[in-house]
Order: sequence, then structure tokens, then C-alpha cells
Amino acid sequence: MHTFVDPITRAERVARDKTALVSGEFQFSYGELAARCRRIAGALERDGIAPGERVAVLAANSAQYIELYLAIPAAGRVVVPLNTRHAVPELVYALGDSGARLLITDRKPSALDEVVERVIRLPGEYESYVDGAPETALGVGVTEDTLAGLFYTGGTTGASKGVMLTHRNLIANTYHWMAISHPRPDDRYLVMAPLFHAAGSNSVLATVWFGGLQIAVPTFDPAAVLDMIESEQITSTLGVPTMIAAMAEEQLANPRNTESLRVLAHGGSPVATEVLRRAHRAFPTAELIHLYGATETAPLATALVREQEELEGPRGRSCGQPIPGVDVRAFDPEGNEVATGEVGEVVIRGPNVMRGYWNKAEQTASVLKDGWYWSGDLGHIDDEGFVFLVDRAKDMIVSGGENVYGTEVEEALYRHPAVLEAAVIGIPDEKWGETVHAVVVPREAVEPDTLIAHCRELIAGYKVPRSIELRDEPLPKSGPGKVLKRELREPFWKDRKEQVS
Amino acid sequence: MHTFVDPITRAERVARDKTALVSGEFQFSYGELAARCRRIAGALERDGIAPGERVAVLAANSAQYIELYLAIPAAGRVVVPLNTRHAVPELVYALGDSGARLLITDRKPSALDEVVERVIRLPGEYESYVDGAPETALGVGVTEDTLAGLFYTGGTTGASKGVMLTHRNLIANTYHWMAISHPRPDDRYLVMAPLFHAAGSNSVLATVWFGGLQIAVPTFDPAAVLDMIESEQITSTLGVPTMIAAMAEEQLANPRNTESLRVLAHGGSPVATEVLRRAHRAFPTAELIHLYGATETAPLATALVREQEELEGPRGRSCGQPIPGVDVRAFDPEGNEVATGEVGEVVIRGPNVMRGYWNKAEQTASVLKDGWYWSGDLGHIDDEGFVFLVDRAKDMIVSGGENVYGTEVEEALYRHPAVLEAAVIGIPDEKWGETVHAVVVPREAVEPDTLIAHCRELIAGYKVPRSIELRDEPLPKSGPGKVLKRELREPFWKDRKEQVS
Repeated sequence: MHTFVDPITRAERVARDKTALVSGEFQFSYGELAARCRRIAGALERDGIAPGERVAVLAANSAQYIELYLAIPAAGRVVVPLNTRHAVPELVYALGDSGARLLITDRKPSALDEVVERVIRLPGEYESYVDGAPETALGVGVTEDTLAGLFYTGGTTGASKGVMLTHRNLIANTYHWMAISHPRPDDRYLVMAPLFHAAGSNSVLATVWFGGLQIAVPTFDPAAVLDMIESEQITSTLGVPTMIAAMAEEQLANPRNTESLRVLAHGGSPVATEVLRRAHRAFPTAELIHLYGATETAPLATALVREQEELEGPRGRSCGQPIPGVDVRAFDPEGNEVATGEVGEVVIRGPNVMRGYWNKAEQTASVLKDGWYWSGDLGHIDDEGFVFLVDRAKDMIVSGGENVYGTEVEEALYRHPAVLEAAVIGIPDEKWGETVHAVVVPREAVEPDTLIAHCRELIAGYKVPRSIELRDEPLPKSGPGKVLKRELREPFWKDRKEQVS
Repeated sequence: MHTFVDPITRAERVARDKTALVSGEFQFSYGELAARCRRIAGALERDGIAPGERVAVLAANSAQYIELYLAIPAAGRVVVPLNTRHAVPELVYALGDSGARLLITDRKPSALDEVVERVIRLPGEYESYVDGAPETALGVGVTEDTLAGLFYTGGTTGASKGVMLTHRNLIANTYHWMAISHPRPDDRYLVMAPLFHAAGSNSVLATVWFGGLQIAVPTFDPAAVLDMIESEQITSTLGVPTMIAAMAEEQLANPRNTESLRVLAHGGSPVATEVLRRAHRAFPTAELIHLYGATETAPLATALVREQEELEGPRGRSCGQPIPGVDVRAFDPEGNEVATGEVGEVVIRGPNVMRGYWNKAEQTASVLKDGWYWSGDLGHIDDEGFVFLVDRAKDMIVSGGENVYGTEVEEALYRHPAVLEAAVIGIPDEKWGETVHAVVVPREAVEPDTLIAHCRELIAGYKVPRSIELRDEPLPKSGPGKVLKRELREPFWKDRKEQVS
């Protein structure tokens, strides 16, 4: 049986004097980390936060955030990492829904303070809170089936839902991650993906378990991140594709010495092959690992390891194979597996699949069936298990009776050297029902007709955008870096609300 | 929840047409392997071998052995891999104790046939047995707490005991192994350590889970193994130290191209640093990984990764740190942890620790206490968790009131270039109780006095052998390659039986 206590205990024993966590001027060793975790447990106990209660955290990445992420579950309470990009009403909803009485945040007082009984502010007040508390043993009453975290999903579709992940869920997926990412005790891991996403959680646990170093950056800035990779000899990091793309652009324009980088993982949204080619050119020493999953799967389901070796082959456009221990298939709506190569809804099963949505039995039942999590993603799987996502189920464009998957069109657009960002949506059309429309942020001057002619050489005629809008501003994105197609679609569909998801 | 079914299912889906197992002329793909596993399940069902029953296997390594090792537990039965080096009375005991009604063996008819209801002989009769059976679904009624294997321990001390390992035990330890050994889908793994030891089981499961290739060799011959590494482009293997030493000697004398070798793991008994230096010189592309554990811990507890980088430092003589997920400490006889650096009995805790000994509640209770497995090994642990074994508890020599740990004396002997093998025992002495005696197999002509003078430069006077016997024959070894000190001691102690363990 493994719980969050195990990595903390091991690190305290094997790496007591090694630096564990760094953010800015602040840093502490594993010996200090373990003691601080015990004091956090002591503070929760002293203040009457009972085992099983939810404790919300709303903050930028920091060493303190990482220790809270470890200590709250290790103390038998449930961490609720809130999305810093959510609007106040969304945060109020999540706080209320979770029933958290305590919020730890780096934000100034706001309407959120009214929702909870107590707010502790990072860093000053929090430091006093920790320093003054007695040390209490970790893990009392904690089993692997104890709830560890409640992660509120992005909210791009309907009301936000709290994903219930147990110790077992997160630790099973941590082992899944360790099996493919070859962690080492001398890892120096850069925590740049927001900690409020489950995506970052496995590497936090894995790095602690191996006694490696973690450096947290509060906001993502590609130049600052590259400076840090050089100065801190960073070995590993994980980001969403927009981060990887920005880092590659910066490195190609202003090269630093990034030879220490061994692992550069990405996930959270689809990514164009050309972005990865540039990332590989920018960071040739790093193994690219493409990850796919969902908060509901804690989060990893598939991985394309050594992706840089696959980029010129057909599998470079896949998100890899099921990670050993996770079963991934494509089902038709009746729950039957589709034939190899046929598009179906991607379903995921394994010890990493969530217990369910907090207080939402109906929504849970609609996505968890016979142990399978229905991801809402459409994809096909080849004869060696490589998973090719074609689109979000709801993002499919139906034009003249033909299905068009936005990512395929975006892939074609990205292969043009002038394209920096591209998103493809369906817009209403009297004749075809929908037609294919693209929104493009160019890297350099280019005409829409040039891009349309470019696409026509690569994909079937019915998939080629009928119209292209050029923009100077970056595309709107959700927390995890997914382009918010909803926002792009809205102007076109605002009189037809049922189409706007 | 993971069981043995998971790696088989995944491999069938992602590597259906890839070669899974090879031995001699015999080979089959993962698609065939999965189908054969289902037929083995069908055959057991058809023949009335109920779920939970034990099925014994007594055979040299082969593809068929590996599939039985996978299929019997996946079918909900319990595999009992018997030690081929045990004498018939020992095997009769194990068969009777386990209650197995079915034995699958490559041996000619013998007294063993009388103990079980049915014997199926490898390879011919077995092939008919498998070919003729219906395919039955794997995993029916199997949970992670289902017993997967019963491993009879060496029997070097007292009556042989059946170590009960569950699916959870073996799969948790497989993940522990994957976390440190960075398996890959293109692994080509050489199965040369005997499959009847739990030591080989994790790499079997890990390789199947990743869809890699396994080649089994029935008997260990260093020249044949090296030929195979070259011709089959072997990437990874695991052996006992005597195997590693023999391979290194052969490679240094008659070099092959072994550049494909990425991982060369060893475990099962202590090993002299000089043997490892030679192994690194012989196989410079391979990462040496030193493993320590026990059948009772399924079996891995600690690992010294990238051992070749540690050989000249003090930690090169350790067996590494606890593998993430396994807790390893040194306890005094009262169960209190000893101070850092002090010698105590090595104890091990984690999801890999056995359920107990089959039908031996008393012996189970004597080694499993509060979740800790008491290994019987003496060792000390440094401030970063590196474990230094000093000896088997029972192998300690007490001479003139001073404790002498045999391995330390052997380590000194091995540093002399003329020493190929060395074992140190205590022999009776009227004055000192015991004195230190060494049995040495020299690589080249050498005088005992030369070796004694050599030791005197390296270790305290009371540890230096008072007498040295030179032998031409290899030292007697148990199945896993441990030198049978019992046999070396016997002539000296035969009138004092209580001292012969």
C-alpha cells in the first residue's frame, strides 16, 4: 500500500540534507520539508480541520504550494488546487461545492474570503502558520483509498466539476510516469506547468520519491525559463504545447546552453508536428515525451516516448501508446470497441481512473461505465496501440455530411512556415450546414489564399478552410493552454445557442 | 488494480505481431502468447484444476516456462516454480507441501511422478496439452490480493518454505523495477537467471508490459551467452554475481561486440568490487545495477543504479538505496532502529512484502512483524540510505570476542589479482572460539602467505585469515549462486553440529 506519506518519508531518510524545493529566494531541504509537512498536519489538527475535510489552495507555483500539495493529503485531508485563471464566480462555485472551510492563497482579500471560514495568506501569514504549529505524524488513518485531491476541471463545458482522486489514483499514475520517464536522484526538475492541474502532480511525487530537486516558477516567461534552465542546470520539465512552442522560439532566436535538459514532456492539448520539430531543433539533448490524458485519469493515459525519433513518421502525429498499466481503447456510442483504425470515443481504464465527480452522481455515471472513463475525445488506434486523436467529440465539424476533424486541418495549416497559431472551427452555412473556418496568427505576412492553396495540397477538398481570418493577437486559451474554440465560435453562432458548447 | 492479466492484455494489443519469446528454435509472437495463455487457462479449467490450486513447474528456462509463469497466475491458479538444483527429496517435500496435483516438467519420469496426480512433460506432451485446449478468458475472479506464486526458498537453512506472493506483491515490485531500470519497447532481454527465482520475475513482467523481446537460455554458459548478446543484439540482462564474473572473464579474454547492452543487473549474493570493475571494463556500454532483496520481498528492496560510477567511492561497496516504494531499515533485536552507521538486522516493508510462508504460521510470525520483513541479513545504513551488508546474521564469525564479517575479508581477498573466488568461514579454535579461514580458487599461482600478507595491509589483524586453503574446483554454490558456506564449514564442525547452519 502506497500513500503520499511514502515519498516524503523516503526523501527525509535518503536526502535529508539535499535541497528539495526552491522558489525565488526561498528554499528548503528534504529534512525541512518533511518537518514542515508534519507541522502543516499539526496546524490542521490544532485548528479543527478534520481528516477528510477539503483545504483549498489558490496560488501561483511556489515551493510552499508543492509542500501543501504533499502535506494536505499526507495529513489525511483533501487538497483542492484551484485554477488561478478562473474568474471569481467560478472560484466561488468551486469553494462552495467542495465545502472547504480553509483557503490558503497568495491573493489579496476578495469576495472569496466570504465563502470560507478562514483565509491564510502566502507567504508571510502562511509562514507563521507553519512555524508555530506542532509536528504531528503523517499518514494517520490514511489508506490508499483515502481521497487525496479534488481537482476542479476547466469549466470549458458546463458547470465545473470536482474530480475526486485518491492516493491510489495519483500514486499508481506516478508509477506509470516513472516507468516511462526514467527519473534519477540527480534530477533538477523545473515546475512551470501550473500546479493546479493534475498534470504536474505525478512529476512532483516522482521527484520527491527519488530525492531530486524541484524549482518552481510562479509565472511562465520563456526567456526567464530558458535563463533558469541554463543557470540551474535543469534536467527535466513538463509544459503545455504553447509553453514548449514559446520556449523553442526563444531558444532558436537567443540560444542558451540547455545541454543539461534530458526530458521535455508536453501534454494538455494537441500540438502541431512543426512545433515539435522546432522544439527538437532548439533542445536537441532532451527526450520529447508527448502525454495524453485527463484530470479524470490522474492524468496520464498514453505516452509517445522519444517523440523526436517519430516526428517524420506517421506515428509522430499520435499521442503514443497506452502507458503500461493503463488500458486505452476507442468505443462506439454503444460501448463496443471499434475496429482498428476506425474513429471512436477514447475510453480509459486503470488504477488511475478517478473515483468520480464530487457530489455529482449523475455526471459521474455518464462518464464512468464498467470501469471505463469516457474521455469525450474522438480518436482512432492503430495496430500497435498508437492513439491518434482527431478532435474533441464536440469539436467535430459536419460539412455536407462529411465529418471534418479540426486538428487535421490545423495540422495542415501548421506545416506552412508562416503559421504561428491556428484553430479550426465550424461556422454556419445555409448550403453545407457548417463550413470549415480557420483563425490564424501568422509568424510573418501571408495571404489567406496562399494558406488555402497550401492546405489543398495536403488534405481532401472538403476539409480545406473556406475562409481564414488572420489575427495579430494570440488565440484565447484556457488554463491548460487549450485554445478556447468556444470563444472563437461564439460570434458566428450567437443566434444559434444550441451549437455553442 | 493490476494483475498478471494486464501486461498480457496490453502486449497483445500493442505488440500482437512482435516476437515475444524465443528459446532455441521455438518462438512466438505476443498475439500467439496471449492465445496460448488463454489455452493454458482453458486446459486447467477442463482438467479440473480449480482456481487457487497450485501448479508446479520444474524445468530449465524456456519460452514455455515464461508463458507458464504468466498464464498460471493470470488464470487464477498459483504457479510453483521449483528449484532445479534441489535434490529429489527436497522437491518431493515442496510438491507435497504445496499440494500441487499437476507438475509440468522437462525431466524424465522419477520419484516425483508419484507425488502428484498428473505430470505433463515439456516440450512435446506440453505442446499437445496447450494446442488441444479451448481458449478461456484470463483474470476471472483474480484480484490483486489473489495468490500468484509459491516460491520455495533455497533450503540452505532448515526446511524449505513456500513464500506466498500475491499479484499485488509481484506487480508492485515490477513497478519498483521499472522505475529504476528504464525499460523500452525495443528491449531485447536475455533470460539467463533461473526462472524459479523471484529475481527473474519482475523483468519478465516488465518486458511483457512494454512489449519487448525475451530470449531464454536453458543453461548458463558464458561463451554461449556472449555469442548471443552479440548475435541477438541483447539490450538487458540480469544474473547472479558468479554469472557476471564469468561473462566478464570471457569477454576480456575473447571480446565480442556487446555494444547493444544497456542494462546489466546483478543480485542474489554479495559481489566483490573487483568483479564489478572487470565487468564494467568488459561491458562499458552497460549500466550496472546492483540489486538486493529476498524472495520474501518479491524480491527487490534496494538498488545501486549506475553502479559503475560508484565503484571507486565508498558507496560502491553498498547495495544502494531503498527503491522508491520500499522502506529499508536496520533494527536491533528489539525492533528499534539502530543509529546511522550502526550494524543491525536489515528489515524491509512495502507492498512487495510476501503474505507469509505457506502453512507455516509460526515461521511467518518470526520474520513478519508489524509489516516489516526481517531479512536475516546484517547491515548498516548511511545518512543517505545506502545499505551496506556486512554478512548473513548467521555467517558472522566471532573470534576472540570480536565480530568478523566474512564479506569484508572476502572483499580484501578479491582485491588481490590472483583471486578468482573466495569464501571466508569461521573454524573452531581452542583459544579464540573461532578463527578466520578462507577457501580460495586462484586465477593464477599464488601462495597463501602472499594472500595473508595482502590482507594484512587492508584489514584489521583479527580479521585476517589465519589459514587459507587453495582449490582448483569452483566453490560449491546454491541455486541463486550463493556460495554454500555450510558445505565449506561442515568438515571443520562435523563434531559440533550445532554450529552448522
